[in-house]
Amino acid sequence: MPRIPYPELLQTLSRILEGKGFTAARAAECARLFAETTCDGVYSHGVSRFPRFLAMIDNGTVDIRAQPELVTAGAALERWNGRHGPGNLNALASMTRAIELARQYSVGCVALAHTNHWMRGGSYGWQAADAGMIGLCWTNTMPNLPAWGATAAVLGNNPMVIAVPREGGHLVLDMAMSQFSYGALAGYRERGEMLPVDGGFDSSGKLTRDPGAIEESHRALPIGYWKGSGLSLVLDAVAAGLSGGLAAFEIPQDPLREGDLSQLFLALDPSKIGAGMEIVDRMIGALQQTEPALNVRYPGEKILKTRAENLEQGVPVDAALWSELRQL
Amino acid sequence: MPRIPYPELLQTLSRILEGKGFTAARAAECARLFAETTCDGVYSHGVSRFPRFLAMIDNGTVDIRAQPELVTAGAALERWNGRHGPGNLNALASMTRAIELARQYSVGCVALAHTNHWMRGGSYGWQAADAGMIGLCWTNTMPNLPAWGATAAVLGNNPMVIAVPREGGHLVLDMAMSQFSYGALAGYRERGEMLPVDGGFDSSGKLTRDPGAIEESHRALPIGYWKGSGLSLVLDAVAAGLSGGLAAFEIPQDPLREGDLSQLFLALDPSKIGAGMEIVDRMIGALQQTEPALNVRYPGEKILKTRAENLEQGVPVDAALWSELRQL
Repeated sequence: MPRIPYPELLQTLSRILEGKGFTAARAAECARLFAETTCDGVYSHGVSRFPRFLAMIDNGTVDIRAQPELVTAGAALERWNGRHGPGNLNALASMTRAIELARQYSVGCVALAHTNHWMRGGSYGWQAADAGMIGLCWTNTMPNLPAWGATAAVLGNNPMVIAVPREGGHLVLDMAMSQFSYGALAGYRERGEMLPVDGGFDSSGKLTRDPGAIEESHRALPIGYWKGSGLSLVLDAVAAGLSGGLAAFEIPQDPLREGDLSQLFLALDPSKIGAGMEIVDRMIGALQQTEPALNVRYPGEKILKTRAENLEQGVPVDAALWSELRQL
Repeated sequence: MPRIPYPELLQTLSRILEGKGFTAARAAECARLFAETTCDGVYSHGVSRFPRFLAMIDNGTVDIRAQPELVTAGAALERWNGRHGPGNLNALASMTRAIELARQYSVGCVALAHTNHWMRGGSYGWQAADAGMIGLCWTNTMPNLPAWGATAAVLGNNPMVIAVPREGGHLVLDMAMSQFSYGALAGYRERGEMLPVDGGFDSSGKLTRDPGAIEESHRALPIGYWKGSGLSLVLDAVAAGLSGGLAAFEIPQDPLREGDLSQLFLALDPSKIGAGMEIVDRMIGALQQTEPALNVRYPGEKILKTRAENLEQGVPVDAALWSELRQL
């Protein structure tokens, strides 16, 4: 896989977005979010999703000119309308606003309706932590996860992000409510591998490690069985309820039309109560020192290493995709 | 199992607590939290834990006179010191304060250090939802959960609660980061049942459905394997970091000395941004109507039915335990 220098990758994506009609500033910001995601090693949600993002601009799901609009303000809590704008720019603006509110009230919360796929949720966790904030955010998705005990997908896999700022590298947890994404399932199938643990049900309703069987049944397993199912439901209820937007079951079950999402962004400012968060260093120390041979990692640790490597050696981008992007 | 009329159960527990030196008001509140938990069918965290609670008063872990004290206030975010007071009373007071802050700022957050076991976390979710609030809270615990890939328990199973208010019955998710809480494992063991899915590793490192083997190894399985492991870590980091208290790895690994816990309580007031939360009814409708034969339940649904039944027919309490309590 070719390694593209980060500035070149960024500039290429930005140029394409300007060609689509983005202003220069918004093109640069949107391109940065895509490029950073791939640079950080989250290959499933970065540049590889760019062609689908362009297709969703072309089919009208994403309105490149729309910017989020304040609907109702109540001190530290605000409701915003994403107006079907680019999902990553809307999410960035929402976390920016939650951070502003947290600087004022110590806690800030933005509920965002009618937005699009935010791509990599972790981006907004890193954003909060870079600002010295604890950040929590989550999104609903199109229905792609059956409730525990059910066969039809009424729930979304609703990724959730929790970020904790730390001098030596932030803790950033970024996880969906399904044990494996459909992208991950396809990867295992293409490599001819079985999943390391059960990932869903086959069409006869048996738990299976066969990725192809789950792709066929569309019955992915929620993390923790009934627990992830319940968590998916309440995250959706909070995001859709507070934002006044749609819940997962109302969202088109089509990756190219998956719009009108509801999201929640929460920032907490530790400095306002004198919280230095030094404990986090001791926690990571305890984790790593107890069984050093096992190399237990904290969420976010691998990203720092990958980011440094990819900034130095270039960002790996699929050869065919890169060739396609250069010609746009 | 004998069914004890709720008022009699409440009065008995309250009398015992007054005998231990609780004021009448605090005895009644503490007794209510224990009795309600059992009445709601959460048998693992109610009256059955009462003898251990008494033992922890006797051994000095729980200081019945201590009340939480404000350490630092920063608008909607406050740090409190639980001063080793009764865990359920401390948690109740903290969620009460978070709700007060949310009435003022729309969002309110209390970080509580140096507290004791809150018993049933769901109590404070119901409390928030009864006040019309969205409530989130979590606690750390003694180290009882190995990080994914490790064998020694450095993490806690850190129960997390998310509650969403709803006219026809609140959504209240109350879940530990282990696939089964230690309370649940004890329940399965006492009933002589195996777990429905793998719940942890036995002492030889094999995945097992035997609850007793997991109680012995202290190697419970995190929900979603690596995902629940990461979630446990970040919840602990937020609670310990913001409260200035201890992280799970620093807490005595002894159920009778498990004190100095760190907790987080967050309340959001939907009414402040005109959020009626009607969407939640539609979500539950969609869940139940898609496959009515499967009887898919939302988190909290079963509790309403059990509560009504136990209030009418009496609260089931183990015969030996009831006999013991009546003689105290």
